[in-house]
Amino acid sequence: MPRLALGVSYRGGAYRGWQSQPGGQTVQDALEAALTAFVDQPVTTVCAGRTDAGVHAFNQVVHLDSPVERGPFSWLRGTNRHLPADIALQWAQPVPDDFHARFHARGRRYRYLLLESAMRPALEAGAVGWTFRPLDAEAMRAAAVLLVGEYDFSSFRSSECQAKSPVKTLRAITINRRGPYWRFDFDGSAFLHHMVRNIMGCLVAVGSGRQPPGWLGEVLAARNRDAAAPTFAADGLYFAGPYYDAALGLPEHTPAMDWLP
Amino acid sequence: MPRLALGVSYRGGAYRGWQSQPGGQTVQDALEAALTAFVDQPVTTVCAGRTDAGVHAFNQVVHLDSPVERGPFSWLRGTNRHLPADIALQWAQPVPDDFHARFHARGRRYRYLLLESAMRPALEAGAVGWTFRPLDAEAMRAAAVLLVGEYDFSSFRSSECQAKSPVKTLRAITINRRGPYWRFDFDGSAFLHHMVRNIMGCLVAVGSGRQPPGWLGEVLAARNRDAAAPTFAADGLYFAGPYYDAALGLPEHTPAMDWLP
Repeated sequence: MPRLALGVSYRGGAYRGWQSQPGGQTVQDALEAALTAFVDQPVTTVCAGRTDAGVHAFNQVVHLDSPVERGPFSWLRGTNRHLPADIALQWAQPVPDDFHARFHARGRRYRYLLLESAMRPALEAGAVGWTFRPLDAEAMRAAAVLLVGEYDFSSFRSSECQAKSPVKTLRAITINRRGPYWRFDFDGSAFLHHMVRNIMGCLVAVGSGRQPPGWLGEVLAARNRDAAAPTFAADGLYFAGPYYDAALGLPEHTPAMDWLP
Repeated sequence: MPRLALGVSYRGGAYRGWQSQPGGQTVQDALEAALTAFVDQPVTTVCAGRTDAGVHAFNQVVHLDSPVERGPFSWLRGTNRHLPADIALQWAQPVPDDFHARFHARGRRYRYLLLESAMRPALEAGAVGWTFRPLDAEAMRAAAVLLVGEYDFSSFRSSECQAKSPVKTLRAITINRRGPYWRFDFDGSAFLHHMVRNIMGCLVAVGSGRQPPGWLGEVLAARNRDAAAPTFAADGLYFAGPYYDAALGLPEHTPAMDWLP
Protein backbone atom coordinates (compact mmCIF):
# COMPACT_ATOMS: atom_id res chain seq x y z
CA MET A 1 0.00 0.00 0.00
CA PRO A 2 1.63 3.28 -1.07
CA ARG A 3 2.15 5.86 1.67
CA LEU A 4 0.65 9.30 1.31
CA ALA A 5 1.21 12.59 3.18
CA LEU A 6 -1.64 15.10 3.53
CA GLY A 7 -1.66 18.76 4.63
CA VAL A 8 -4.75 19.64 6.70
CA SER A 9 -6.08 23.07 7.73
CA TYR A 10 -8.67 23.37 10.46
CA ARG A 11 -10.38 25.71 12.85
CA GLY A 12 -10.27 24.01 16.24
CA GLY A 13 -13.12 25.85 18.00
CA ALA A 14 -15.71 23.12 17.52
CA TYR A 15 -13.42 20.16 18.33
CA ARG A 16 -12.05 18.45 21.41
CA GLY A 17 -8.55 18.61 19.96
CA TRP A 18 -6.82 16.49 17.35
CA GLN A 19 -6.62 13.06 18.89
CA SER A 20 -9.39 10.52 18.33
CA GLN A 21 -11.60 9.91 21.38
CA PRO A 22 -14.35 7.40 22.12
CA GLY A 23 -17.02 10.13 22.02
CA GLY A 24 -15.75 11.50 18.68
CA GLN A 25 -15.91 15.26 17.95
CA THR A 26 -12.16 15.46 17.34
CA VAL A 27 -10.38 16.58 14.17
CA GLN A 28 -8.81 13.14 13.67
CA ASP A 29 -12.24 11.48 13.93
CA ALA A 30 -13.69 13.86 11.33
CA LEU A 31 -10.73 13.42 8.99
CA GLU A 32 -10.65 9.63 9.20
CA ALA A 33 -14.42 9.45 8.70
CA ALA A 34 -14.09 11.55 5.53
CA LEU A 35 -11.14 9.52 4.20
CA THR A 36 -13.01 6.30 4.95
CA ALA A 37 -16.12 7.62 3.18
CA PHE A 38 -14.03 8.59 0.15
CA VAL A 39 -12.23 5.24 -0.32
CA ASP A 40 -15.01 3.13 1.19
CA GLN A 41 -12.50 1.29 3.40
CA PRO A 42 -11.23 2.03 6.93
CA VAL A 43 -8.40 4.59 6.91
CA THR A 44 -6.26 5.58 9.91
CA THR A 45 -3.82 8.48 10.07
CA VAL A 46 -0.72 9.47 12.06
CA CYS A 47 -0.18 13.20 12.63
CA ALA A 48 2.89 15.38 13.07
CA GLY A 49 1.69 17.08 16.24
CA ARG A 50 -1.47 16.63 18.27
CA THR A 51 -3.31 19.88 18.92
CA ASP A 52 -5.43 20.70 21.96
CA ALA A 53 -9.12 21.57 22.15
CA GLY A 54 -9.77 24.91 20.42
CA VAL A 55 -6.34 25.09 18.74
CA HIS A 56 -6.25 25.70 14.98
CA ALA A 57 -3.88 24.43 12.30
CA PHE A 58 -2.57 25.97 9.10
CA ASN A 59 -0.72 22.87 8.00
CA GLN A 60 -1.10 19.78 10.14
CA VAL A 61 0.62 16.89 8.35
CA VAL A 62 -0.58 13.29 8.50
CA HIS A 63 0.52 10.11 6.78
CA LEU A 64 -1.59 7.14 5.84
CA ASP A 65 -1.26 3.94 3.86
CA SER A 66 -3.53 4.19 0.89
CA PRO A 67 -5.77 1.17 0.40
CA VAL A 68 -6.61 2.31 -3.15
CA GLU A 69 -4.80 3.82 -6.13
CA ARG A 70 -5.88 7.43 -6.61
CA GLY A 71 -4.05 10.54 -7.76
CA PRO A 72 -3.33 13.32 -5.23
CA PHE A 73 -5.97 15.65 -6.68
CA SER A 74 -8.59 12.92 -6.46
CA TRP A 75 -7.76 12.43 -2.75
CA LEU A 76 -8.10 16.15 -2.11
CA ARG A 77 -11.37 16.77 -3.87
CA GLY A 78 -12.87 13.46 -2.80
CA THR A 79 -12.01 13.86 0.88
CA ASN A 80 -12.92 17.55 1.14
CA ARG A 81 -16.39 16.73 -0.09
CA HIS A 82 -16.90 14.64 3.07
CA LEU A 83 -15.27 17.06 5.54
CA PRO A 84 -17.12 19.75 7.53
CA ALA A 85 -16.58 23.40 6.50
CA ASP A 86 -13.95 24.03 9.21
CA ILE A 87 -11.58 21.25 8.07
CA ALA A 88 -10.02 20.92 4.59
CA LEU A 89 -7.13 19.09 2.97
CA GLN A 90 -4.77 21.55 1.29
CA TRP A 91 -2.30 19.21 -0.40
CA ALA A 92 -1.52 15.51 -0.90
CA GLN A 93 1.80 13.97 -1.89
CA PRO A 94 3.23 10.45 -2.17
CA VAL A 95 6.05 9.77 0.32
CA PRO A 96 8.50 6.87 0.83
CA ASP A 97 7.07 3.82 2.62
CA ASP A 98 9.11 4.51 5.76
CA PHE A 99 8.03 8.18 6.07
CA HIS A 100 6.55 8.98 9.47
CA ALA A 101 4.71 12.30 9.98
CA ARG A 102 5.68 12.52 13.64
CA PHE A 103 9.07 10.86 13.97
CA HIS A 104 10.56 12.38 10.84
CA ALA A 105 9.61 15.97 11.69
CA ARG A 106 12.80 18.00 12.17
CA GLY A 107 10.87 20.71 13.93
CA ARG A 108 7.48 22.34 14.38
CA ARG A 109 6.15 25.87 14.17
CA TYR A 110 3.35 27.52 16.09
CA ARG A 111 1.84 30.96 15.62
CA TYR A 112 -0.11 32.99 18.15
CA LEU A 113 -2.30 35.89 17.00
CA LEU A 114 -3.21 38.50 19.56
CA LEU A 115 -5.49 41.53 19.27
CA GLU A 116 -4.49 44.57 21.34
CA SER A 117 -7.63 46.69 21.54
CA ALA A 118 -9.81 48.44 24.10
CA MET A 119 -12.79 46.45 22.79
CA ARG A 120 -13.01 42.69 22.37
CA PRO A 121 -13.11 41.21 18.87
CA ALA A 122 -16.29 39.99 17.12
CA LEU A 123 -15.35 39.18 13.51
CA GLU A 124 -12.16 37.44 14.68
CA ALA A 125 -13.65 35.94 17.84
CA GLY A 126 -12.14 32.49 18.43
CA ALA A 127 -9.37 33.22 15.91
CA VAL A 128 -7.28 35.62 18.02
CA GLY A 129 -6.34 36.07 21.66
CA TRP A 130 -7.20 39.46 23.12
CA THR A 131 -5.64 41.95 25.50
CA PHE A 132 -6.83 45.48 26.24
CA ARG A 133 -3.44 46.39 27.74
CA PRO A 134 -0.96 48.12 25.38
CA LEU A 135 2.08 45.89 24.76
CA ASP A 136 5.76 46.83 24.50
CA ALA A 137 7.45 44.99 21.61
CA GLU A 138 11.03 45.56 22.81
CA ALA A 139 10.29 44.28 26.31
CA MET A 140 8.67 41.14 24.91
CA ARG A 141 11.55 40.52 22.49
CA ALA A 142 14.09 40.95 25.29
CA ALA A 143 12.16 38.38 27.35
CA ALA A 144 11.57 35.93 24.48
CA VAL A 145 15.25 35.64 23.62
CA LEU A 146 15.89 34.22 27.12
CA LEU A 147 13.91 31.13 26.12
CA VAL A 148 15.72 30.42 22.85
CA GLY A 149 17.98 27.40 23.18
CA GLU A 150 17.87 23.89 24.61
CA TYR A 151 16.27 24.05 28.06
CA ASP A 152 14.17 22.22 30.58
CA PHE A 153 10.78 23.85 29.96
CA SER A 154 9.03 22.37 33.03
CA SER A 155 7.82 25.85 34.05
CA PHE A 156 5.75 26.01 30.86
CA ARG A 157 4.45 22.43 30.92
CA SER A 158 0.91 21.50 31.90
CA SER A 159 0.40 18.84 34.56
CA GLU A 160 -1.26 16.67 31.89
CA CYS A 161 1.78 16.64 29.61
CA GLN A 162 2.76 13.14 28.51
CA ALA A 163 6.14 13.96 26.94
CA LYS A 164 9.01 11.78 28.19
CA SER A 165 11.35 14.71 28.73
CA PRO A 166 10.75 18.40 29.51
CA VAL A 167 13.93 19.29 27.63
CA LYS A 168 13.18 20.83 24.24
CA THR A 169 14.97 23.15 21.83
CA LEU A 170 13.30 26.45 21.05
CA ARG A 171 15.00 27.74 17.89
CA ALA A 172 13.33 31.14 17.53
CA ILE A 173 10.53 33.36 18.79
CA THR A 174 9.68 36.15 16.35
CA ILE A 175 7.35 38.99 17.35
CA ASN A 176 5.71 41.28 14.81
CA ARG A 177 2.68 43.51 14.68
CA ARG A 178 0.35 44.89 12.02
CA GLY A 179 -1.90 47.61 13.32
CA PRO A 180 -3.52 46.29 16.51
CA TYR A 181 -2.64 42.64 15.69
CA TRP A 182 0.43 40.95 17.15
CA ARG A 183 1.92 37.81 15.67
CA PHE A 184 4.19 35.53 17.71
CA ASP A 185 6.00 32.80 15.73
CA PHE A 186 7.57 29.89 17.59
CA ASP A 187 10.02 27.46 15.97
CA GLY A 188 11.22 24.46 17.97
CA SER A 189 12.13 20.80 17.99
CA ALA A 190 8.88 19.87 19.69
CA PHE A 191 6.53 21.47 22.20
CA LEU A 192 5.23 20.36 25.60
CA HIS A 193 1.52 20.40 26.41
CA HIS A 194 0.36 24.04 26.78
CA MET A 195 3.94 25.25 26.29
CA VAL A 196 3.15 28.00 23.77
CA ARG A 197 0.08 29.20 25.68
CA ASN A 198 2.08 29.30 28.92
CA ILE A 199 4.90 31.24 27.28
CA MET A 200 2.29 33.61 25.80
CA GLY A 201 0.88 34.29 29.28
CA CYS A 202 4.38 35.28 30.42
CA LEU A 203 5.17 37.38 27.34
CA VAL A 204 1.94 39.36 27.78
CA ALA A 205 2.79 39.88 31.47
CA VAL A 206 6.11 41.39 30.33
CA GLY A 207 4.63 43.30 27.39
CA SER A 208 2.05 44.99 29.58
CA GLY A 209 4.70 45.98 32.14
CA ARG A 210 3.52 43.73 34.95
CA GLN A 211 6.88 41.93 34.92
CA PRO A 212 10.36 42.99 33.69
CA PRO A 213 11.88 41.07 30.75
CA GLY A 214 14.45 39.34 33.00
CA TRP A 215 11.63 37.70 34.92
CA LEU A 216 11.23 35.17 32.11
CA GLY A 217 14.74 33.89 32.82
CA GLU A 218 13.74 33.34 36.45
CA VAL A 219 10.58 31.51 35.41
CA LEU A 220 12.59 29.22 33.12
CA ALA A 221 15.20 28.53 35.81
CA ALA A 222 12.54 27.65 38.38
CA ARG A 223 11.45 24.54 36.41
CA ASN A 224 8.17 24.87 38.23
CA ARG A 225 4.79 25.57 36.63
CA ASP A 226 3.78 27.75 39.59
CA ALA A 227 6.46 30.27 38.66
CA ALA A 228 4.84 31.16 35.32
CA ALA A 229 1.79 33.25 34.39
CA PRO A 230 -1.63 31.62 33.79
CA THR A 231 -2.16 29.70 30.54
CA PHE A 232 -3.23 32.08 27.76
CA ALA A 233 -6.42 31.45 25.72
CA ALA A 234 -6.38 28.76 23.01
CA ASP A 235 -8.29 31.11 20.65
CA GLY A 236 -5.25 32.65 18.93
CA LEU A 237 -3.07 29.52 18.73
CA TYR A 238 -2.26 27.94 15.34
CA PHE A 239 -0.14 24.91 14.63
CA ALA A 240 1.72 26.30 11.62
CA GLY A 241 3.01 22.82 10.87
CA PRO A 242 6.02 20.53 10.97
CA TYR A 243 9.01 20.66 8.67
CA TYR A 244 10.93 17.74 7.22
CA ASP A 245 14.05 16.98 5.26
CA ALA A 246 13.89 19.35 2.26
CA ALA A 247 14.48 16.39 -0.06
CA LEU A 248 10.92 15.22 0.64
CA GLY A 249 9.59 18.44 -0.87
CA LEU A 250 6.53 18.64 1.40
CA PRO A 251 4.71 22.02 1.41
CA GLU A 252 5.21 24.20 4.50
CA HIS A 253 2.79 26.92 3.42
CA THR A 254 -0.99 27.02 3.01
CA PRO A 255 -3.12 29.97 1.80
CA ALA A 256 -4.51 30.91 5.23
CA MET A 257 -0.99 31.91 6.32
CA ASP A 258 -1.34 34.87 3.93
CA TRP A 259 -4.81 35.70 5.12
CA LEU A 260 -4.04 36.34 8.77
CA PRO A 261 -1.72 39.13 9.97
CA MET B 1 -32.77 61.92 26.00
CA PRO B 2 -29.28 62.41 24.51
CA ARG B 3 -28.62 60.72 21.18
CA LEU B 4 -25.74 58.26 20.87
CA ALA B 5 -24.02 56.67 17.85
CA LEU B 6 -22.47 53.20 18.15
CA GLY B 7 -20.08 51.29 15.88
CA VAL B 8 -20.85 47.56 15.73
CA SER B 9 -18.75 44.69 14.33
CA TYR B 10 -20.32 41.32 13.66
CA ARG B 11 -19.92 38.02 11.93
CA GLY B 12 -23.18 37.38 10.11
CA GLY B 13 -22.99 33.60 9.64
CA ALA B 14 -25.25 32.71 12.57
CA TYR B 15 -27.88 35.42 11.91
CA ARG B 16 -30.84 35.98 9.62
CA GLY B 17 -29.49 39.39 8.66
CA TRP B 18 -29.59 42.72 10.47
CA GLN B 19 -33.25 43.60 10.65
CA SER B 20 -35.35 42.54 13.62
CA GLN B 21 -37.80 39.72 12.89
CA PRO B 22 -40.59 38.13 14.89
CA GLY B 23 -38.59 34.89 15.34
CA GLY B 24 -35.50 36.77 16.49
CA GLN B 25 -32.00 35.49 15.58
CA THR B 26 -31.05 38.74 13.86
CA VAL B 27 -28.18 41.05 14.71
CA GLN B 28 -30.55 43.90 15.61
CA ASP B 29 -32.46 41.62 18.01
CA ALA B 30 -29.21 40.54 19.72
CA LEU B 31 -27.94 44.12 19.95
CA GLU B 32 -31.17 45.59 21.30
CA ALA B 33 -31.47 42.77 23.84
CA ALA B 34 -27.93 43.51 25.08
CA LEU B 35 -28.53 47.28 25.24
CA THR B 36 -31.82 46.69 27.06
CA ALA B 37 -30.11 44.35 29.54
CA PHE B 38 -27.40 46.95 30.18
CA VAL B 39 -29.68 49.92 30.87
CA ASP B 40 -32.57 47.83 32.19
CA GLN B 41 -35.02 49.71 29.94
CA PRO B 42 -36.22 49.03 26.38
CA VAL B 43 -33.79 50.37 23.78
CA THR B 44 -34.37 50.51 20.02
CA THR B 45 -31.80 51.31 17.36
CA VAL B 46 -31.74 52.66 13.80
CA CYS B 47 -28.93 51.40 11.54
CA ALA B 48 -27.01 52.92 8.61
CA GLY B 49 -27.51 49.95 6.31
CA ARG B 50 -29.38 46.69 6.77
CA THR B 51 -27.28 43.64 5.99
CA ASP B 52 -28.55 40.33 4.63
CA ALA B 53 -28.36 36.87 6.19
CA GLY B 54 -24.72 35.74 6.43
CA VAL B 55 -23.25 39.17 5.66
CA HIS B 56 -20.64 40.55 8.08
CA ALA B 57 -19.93 44.12 9.24
CA PHE B 58 -16.73 45.89 10.19
CA ASN B 59 -18.45 49.08 11.21
CA GLN B 60 -22.23 49.09 11.16
CA VAL B 61 -23.41 52.38 12.68
CA VAL B 62 -26.59 52.76 14.71
CA HIS B 63 -28.13 55.60 16.64
CA LEU B 64 -30.31 55.42 19.74
CA ASP B 65 -31.80 57.74 22.29
CA SER B 66 -30.22 56.99 25.60
CA PRO B 67 -32.68 56.54 28.45
CA VAL B 68 -29.86 56.85 31.00
CA GLU B 69 -26.76 58.99 31.54
CA ARG B 70 -23.66 56.86 30.99
CA GLY B 71 -20.24 57.63 29.54
CA PRO B 72 -19.26 56.10 26.17
CA PHE B 73 -16.84 53.62 27.74
CA SER B 74 -19.51 52.44 30.14
CA TRP B 75 -21.88 51.79 27.20
CA LEU B 76 -19.22 49.78 25.40
CA ARG B 77 -18.10 47.55 28.24
CA GLY B 78 -21.59 47.18 29.67
CA THR B 79 -23.21 46.22 26.36
CA ASN B 80 -20.41 43.92 25.15
CA ARG B 81 -20.81 41.89 28.32
CA HIS B 82 -24.34 40.99 27.16
CA LEU B 83 -23.54 40.39 23.47
CA PRO B 84 -22.65 37.00 21.94
CA ALA B 85 -19.01 36.42 20.91
CA ASP B 86 -19.68 37.23 17.23
CA ILE B 87 -21.07 40.74 17.87
CA ALA B 88 -19.24 43.57 19.66
CA LEU B 89 -19.51 47.33 19.97
CA GLN B 90 -16.28 48.99 18.87
CA TRP B 91 -16.98 52.65 19.68
CA ALA B 92 -19.66 54.96 21.14
CA GLN B 93 -20.00 58.69 20.63
CA PRO B 94 -22.58 61.37 21.48
CA VAL B 95 -24.21 62.94 18.40
CA PRO B 96 -26.58 65.88 17.85
CA ASP B 97 -30.24 65.17 18.61
CA ASP B 98 -31.18 65.28 14.92
CA PHE B 99 -28.46 62.84 13.82
CA HIS B 100 -29.86 59.92 11.82
CA ALA B 101 -27.62 56.89 11.14
CA ARG B 102 -29.36 56.11 7.85
CA PHE B 103 -30.52 59.42 6.40
CA HIS B 104 -27.35 61.33 7.21
CA ALA B 105 -25.00 58.78 5.66
CA ARG B 106 -23.21 60.41 2.70
CA GLY B 107 -22.19 57.03 1.39
CA ARG B 108 -21.48 53.42 2.26
CA ARG B 109 -18.61 51.04 1.71
CA TYR B 110 -18.66 47.29 1.19
CA ARG B 111 -15.74 44.90 0.95
CA TYR B 112 -15.70 41.46 -0.62
CA LEU B 113 -12.92 38.99 0.24
CA LEU B 114 -12.31 36.15 -2.18
CA LEU B 115 -9.91 33.22 -1.95
CA GLU B 116 -8.45 31.98 -5.24
CA SER B 117 -7.17 28.49 -4.50
CA ALA B 118 -7.40 24.95 -5.86
CA MET B 119 -8.65 23.83 -2.44
CA ARG B 120 -11.55 25.27 -0.48
CA PRO B 121 -10.83 27.23 2.73
CA ALA B 122 -11.22 25.81 6.26
CA LEU B 123 -9.78 28.38 8.69
CA GLU B 124 -11.48 31.20 6.78
CA ALA B 125 -14.66 29.27 5.93
CA GLY B 126 -17.65 31.62 6.07
CA ALA B 127 -15.33 34.66 6.05
CA VAL B 128 -14.29 34.57 2.37
CA GLY B 129 -15.83 33.67 -0.94
CA TRP B 130 -13.95 31.03 -2.93
CA THR B 131 -13.04 30.36 -6.54
CA PHE B 132 -10.70 27.71 -7.85
CA ARG B 133 -10.38 29.53 -11.19
CA PRO B 134 -7.37 31.85 -11.59
CA LEU B 135 -8.49 35.48 -11.91
CA ASP B 136 -7.16 38.25 -14.15
CA ALA B 137 -6.86 41.55 -12.25
CA GLU B 138 -6.64 43.78 -15.34
CA ALA B 139 -9.73 42.24 -16.95
CA MET B 140 -11.72 42.72 -13.72
CA ARG B 141 -10.55 46.32 -13.33
CA ALA B 142 -11.46 47.10 -16.93
CA ALA B 143 -14.94 45.68 -16.31
CA ALA B 144 -15.43 47.33 -12.89
CA VAL B 145 -14.76 50.84 -14.20
CA LEU B 146 -17.80 50.48 -16.50
CA LEU B 147 -20.03 50.47 -13.41
CA VAL B 148 -18.58 53.58 -11.77
CA GLY B 149 -20.99 56.50 -12.02
CA GLU B 150 -24.68 57.20 -11.57
CA TYR B 151 -26.65 54.41 -13.23
CA ASP B 152 -29.81 52.35 -13.14
CA PHE B 153 -28.51 49.18 -11.48
CA SER B 154 -31.64 47.07 -12.13
CA SER B 155 -29.50 44.29 -13.61
CA PHE B 156 -27.83 43.83 -10.21
CA ARG B 157 -30.95 44.13 -8.07
CA SER B 158 -32.68 41.19 -6.43
CA SER B 159 -36.39 40.74 -6.99
CA GLU B 160 -36.91 41.30 -3.24
CA CYS B 161 -35.31 44.75 -3.27
CA GLN B 162 -37.47 47.40 -1.59
CA ALA B 163 -35.52 50.48 -2.68
CA LYS B 164 -37.66 53.21 -4.27
CA SER B 165 -35.27 53.75 -7.16
CA PRO B 166 -32.75 51.47 -8.90
CA VAL B 167 -30.61 54.53 -9.67
CA LYS B 168 -27.55 54.70 -7.42
CA THR B 169 -24.09 56.24 -7.63
CA LEU B 170 -21.12 53.88 -7.47
CA ARG B 171 -18.11 56.07 -6.65
CA ALA B 172 -15.32 53.51 -6.87
CA ILE B 173 -14.51 49.82 -7.14
CA THR B 174 -10.96 49.02 -6.05
CA ILE B 175 -9.45 45.57 -6.63
CA ASN B 176 -6.33 44.36 -4.81
CA ARG B 177 -4.78 41.04 -3.95
CA ARG B 178 -2.43 39.67 -1.30
CA GLY B 179 -1.18 36.21 -2.12
CA PRO B 180 -4.23 34.10 -2.97
CA TYR B 181 -6.69 36.60 -1.39
CA TRP B 182 -8.52 39.18 -3.44
CA ARG B 183 -10.11 42.25 -1.93
CA PHE B 184 -12.86 44.17 -3.73
CA ASP B 185 -13.79 47.55 -2.19
CA PHE B 186 -17.05 49.22 -3.21
CA ASP B 187 -17.86 52.86 -2.40
CA GLY B 188 -21.29 54.21 -3.28
CA SER B 189 -24.21 56.39 -2.31
CA ALA B 190 -26.31 53.37 -1.35
CA PHE B 191 -26.66 49.79 -2.52
CA LEU B 192 -29.60 47.77 -3.80
CA HIS B 193 -30.48 44.37 -2.33
CA HIS B 194 -27.80 41.82 -3.45
CA MET B 195 -26.12 44.51 -5.59
CA VAL B 196 -22.55 43.80 -4.44
CA ARG B 197 -22.98 40.02 -4.63
CA ASN B 198 -24.47 40.30 -8.11
CA ILE B 199 -21.63 42.54 -9.29
CA MET B 200 -19.16 40.06 -7.75
CA GLY B 201 -20.69 37.21 -9.75
CA CYS B 202 -20.12 39.22 -12.93
CA LEU B 203 -16.58 40.33 -12.01
CA VAL B 204 -15.57 36.71 -11.34
CA ALA B 205 -17.09 35.69 -14.69
CA VAL B 206 -14.84 38.30 -16.33
CA GLY B 207 -11.80 37.54 -14.15
CA SER B 208 -11.93 33.84 -15.02
CA GLY B 209 -12.23 34.58 -18.74
CA ARG B 210 -15.78 33.36 -19.21
CA GLN B 211 -16.84 36.84 -20.33
CA PRO B 212 -14.89 39.79 -21.78
CA PRO B 213 -14.65 43.02 -19.72
CA GLY B 214 -17.03 44.88 -22.06
CA TRP B 215 -19.77 42.42 -21.22
CA LEU B 216 -20.33 44.23 -17.91
CA GLY B 217 -21.38 47.34 -19.86
CA GLU B 218 -23.96 45.26 -21.71
CA VAL B 219 -25.26 43.78 -18.46
CA LEU B 220 -25.64 47.27 -16.97
CA ALA B 221 -27.39 48.60 -20.08
CA ALA B 222 -29.86 45.70 -20.10
CA ARG B 223 -31.44 46.83 -16.80
CA ASN B 224 -32.57 43.25 -16.43
CA ARG B 225 -31.49 40.84 -13.69
CA ASP B 226 -31.48 37.94 -16.17
CA ALA B 227 -28.57 39.55 -18.02
CA ALA B 228 -26.15 39.22 -15.05
CA ALA B 229 -24.29 36.26 -13.55
CA PRO B 230 -25.69 34.34 -10.55
CA THR B 231 -25.53 35.99 -7.11
CA PHE B 232 -22.14 35.30 -5.48
CA ALA B 233 -21.91 33.75 -1.97
CA ALA B 234 -22.60 35.95 1.08
CA ASP B 235 -19.59 34.44 2.89
CA GLY B 236 -17.00 37.03 1.83
CA LEU B 237 -19.22 40.14 2.05
CA TYR B 238 -18.54 42.81 4.68
CA PHE B 239 -20.39 46.04 5.27
CA ALA B 240 -17.36 48.26 5.84
CA GLY B 241 -19.66 50.99 7.10
CA PRO B 242 -21.26 54.33 6.29
CA TYR B 243 -19.52 57.68 6.23
CA TYR B 244 -20.90 61.00 7.41
CA ASP B 245 -20.08 64.68 7.41
CA ALA B 246 -16.49 64.84 8.71
CA ALA B 247 -17.56 67.46 11.27
CA LEU B 248 -19.33 64.70 13.21
CA GLY B 249 -15.99 62.96 13.72
CA LEU B 250 -17.44 59.43 13.69
CA PRO B 251 -14.87 56.59 13.32
CA GLU B 252 -14.74 54.87 9.92
CA HIS B 253 -12.17 52.28 10.92
CA THR B 254 -12.29 49.28 13.28
CA PRO B 255 -9.44 46.87 14.13
CA ALA B 256 -10.73 43.95 12.03
CA MET B 257 -10.10 46.01 8.88
CA ASP B 258 -6.37 45.56 9.59
CA TRP B 259 -6.75 41.87 10.28
CA LEU B 260 -8.17 40.76 6.96
CA PRO B 261 -6.25 41.08 3.68
